[in-house]
Amino acid sequence: MPKAPVLIDLKFSGRAAIVEALGAFFSDRPVIDLADPQTKGRDLSDCRYAVLWKPDDDLFSRAPNLEVLFSGGAGVERVLALRGLPDVPLVRFVDPSLTRRMSEYVVLQCLYHARRMPDYVRLEAERNWQQLPPAEAGDFTVGIMGLGVLGQDAATKLKVMGFNVIGWSRGMKEIDGVECFDAGGLDAFLERTDILVGLLPLTDETTGLFDRALFERLNRSGPLGSPVFINAGRGGSQVEADILAALDDGVLHGVSLDVFETEPLPATSPLWAHERVVVTPHVASDTDVRALFAHVERQIARFEAGAPLQHVVDRAAGY
Amino acid sequence: MPKAPVLIDLKFSGRAAIVEALGAFFSDRPVIDLADPQTKGRDLSDCRYAVLWKPDDDLFSRAPNLEVLFSGGAGVERVLALRGLPDVPLVRFVDPSLTRRMSEYVVLQCLYHARRMPDYVRLEAERNWQQLPPAEAGDFTVGIMGLGVLGQDAATKLKVMGFNVIGWSRGMKEIDGVECFDAGGLDAFLERTDILVGLLPLTDETTGLFDRALFERLNRSGPLGSPVFINAGRGGSQVEADILAALDDGVLHGVSLDVFETEPLPATSPLWAHERVVVTPHVASDTDVRALFAHVERQIARFEAGAPLQHVVDRAAGY
Ligand SMILES: NC(=O)c1ccc[n+]([C@@H]2O[C@H](COP(=O)([O-])OP(=O)(O)OC[C@H]3O[C@@H](n4cnc5c(N)ncnc54)[C@H](OP(=O)(O)O)[C@@H]3O)[C@@H](O)[C@H]2O)c1
Ligand SMILES: NC(=O)c1ccc[n+]([C@@H]2O[C@H](COP(=O)([O-])OP(=O)(O)OC[C@H]3O[C@@H](n4cnc5c(N)ncnc54)[C@H](OP(=O)(O)O)[C@@H]3O)[C@@H](O)[C@H]2O)c1
Repeated sequence: MPKAPVLIDLKFSGRAAIVEALGAFFSDRPVIDLADPQTKGRDLSDCRYAVLWKPDDDLFSRAPNLEVLFSGGAGVERVLALRGLPDVPLVRFVDPSLTRRMSEYVVLQCLYHARRMPDYVRLEAERNWQQLPPAEAGDFTVGIMGLGVLGQDAATKLKVMGFNVIGWSRGMKEIDGVECFDAGGLDAFLERTDILVGLLPLTDETTGLFDRALFERLNRSGPLGSPVFINAGRGGSQVEADILAALDDGVLHGVSLDVFETEPLPATSPLWAHERVVVTPHVASDTDVRALFAHVERQIARFEAGAPLQHVVDRAAGY
Repeated sequence: MPKAPVLIDLKFSGRAAIVEALGAFFSDRPVIDLADPQTKGRDLSDCRYAVLWKPDDDLFSRAPNLEVLFSGGAGVERVLALRGLPDVPLVRFVDPSLTRRMSEYVVLQCLYHARRMPDYVRLEAERNWQQLPPAEAGDFTVGIMGLGVLGQDAATKLKVMGFNVIGWSRGMKEIDGVECFDAGGLDAFLERTDILVGLLPLTDETTGLFDRALFERLNRSGPLGSPVFINAGRGGSQVEADILAALDDGVLHGVSLDVFETEPLPATSPLWAHERVVVTPHVASDTDVRALFAHVERQIARFEAGAPLQHVVDRAAGY
């Protein structure tokens, strides 16, 4: 019996990369790539698997026999919000390269602020040779909110670079050399934190979490005076008006944001031009489609062999 | 018998830090701090140890019985060039915090270029949301010139962050996971290198080494097209006119410099304003005077106990 087809509906920007990658995967089964005009009107009732990012509105009615859904990204809040989402397992994207790249982003931004690069960039623009009081990683405590796949790897690498690292997550974690706090320990966690790193999924509970009240609870006697905020989770967790106000009245010292309330970040946002804000356009760790398809192949193989799927989303928790 | 006095002649910028640190060290012997006006005209013939950075011209004639000299910095080319330098052991400054801070600088600058931050900074200034082709540490080979105390630690940390790392030094080294080249292997080393990191001492052999001819031998098919140059050794090893020309005609993609031919870097230097140059004012790893005095105390204790001094400079080699 031929193997069941896999549906691809990935509205990523790099179309060529998807086409190229598809050539190298799923050789044992039909691939129906909905971006290919030839699939127009095709009966999708034989499809059992679908790999999705911003799928067509009518996808689930056209393909009523899906047994496993795969999110094209690590964050699943958009997939969970899809109308008509069938009640079948949703597998999120977890991959060593995605994890590694996120840790690169986090280490880069933490070192950038700890080593006073925003000041040196300003001094460079002024042609001003001025040696600021030295600060090193070991003078800072980085507090990571979200100790999942990404948060745990970032914690380990920040430790290697010499930072003190503490972490916060819903349930209690044990990570070597990292003091961990659970939901109830938020106050104790925040008051120790000099550099706050957000690596949380977007859920009802994390929406709007990074607001002025939270920033005010961070440590105010660290090496830079006021604390630094870095967010690479989801923009919906941050209140950008509060971030700007906190920067302007010294509640925050500096900020690096890879994610925003609205993406693309509107050209009118004052975040773009702020001297103490590093803006990157959601590139901390984008999906590598080859790695995505390899992960999907692995999970389908497990599923068809009767083994449990990995990285299945908990719908009640929302991640 | 009272212990022999130690002479301090450190012309660092932070005078207060020296005074404060001296209060905590050398409690078992007299300290003669030449910056203290009370030492004016004092007989220095009883001094056996001196800790030096840009010392007075007449120091060695005033203190003719020195038995060990200590450099206030990790680089010793200035001390070696002092007139009247006595032929006694010169100990350079080696310290875990100095090493750690240098590795922070190197990892920060390598990630900054690998993750295309110069481009994202420009796009931010233009309020332009544009996702560039992704690149990650693992796509780059960092070539470190100078595998001493600093180069070896930087190599280890770059490896943890996912970079491929190769290294070059005068004599052959063995470092786990790092392919090493010796003086004769320079060509093979350079043609593999996407990001060149200079951590060399300034000697006759390394003066002017980083010139156009050398940049042209670097790998020209890396993830950014042309290669990146980072120097935190000594500015005398680089030819700044060549760096600027190489940036402008694409022989180099980007540059981070912590050291310069002339320091402070003159306000007229085009390096300040160049979009693809990160200038820092020789702060990659400055001397922490407390750590310096702790190191000097340790070495004097060894010396007085008849144990060999550590980190003694090889005068013939110049480092
Ligand atoms: N910017 C980018 O390029 C990019 C790339 C990839 C991913 N991301 C974002 O990063 C997020 C994290 O990814 P991941 O793979 O690390 O996810 P994960 O493995 O699911 O981990 C999520 C972590 O957040 C914690 N958490 C969730 N809700 C919480 C709450 N209400 N209170 C306290 N802690 C809570 C979880 O706690 P428990 O451990 O107790 O469950 C867990 O530690 C993704 O959801 C995605 O939105 C961004
Ligand atoms: N920017 C800053 O803030 C800062 C701070 C501290 C130090 N520095 C600079 O960094 C330099 C390196 O420090 P370190 O403690 O790592 O010194 P180190 O332990 O003496 O190591 C020097 C390295 O350079 C190599 N080397 C020297 N001459 C060479 C040549 N002609 N050809 C090839 N390799 C050569 C040596 O080779 P072998 O191993 O074969 O001897 C050794 O691997 C210092 O000299 C100082 O100038 C800068």
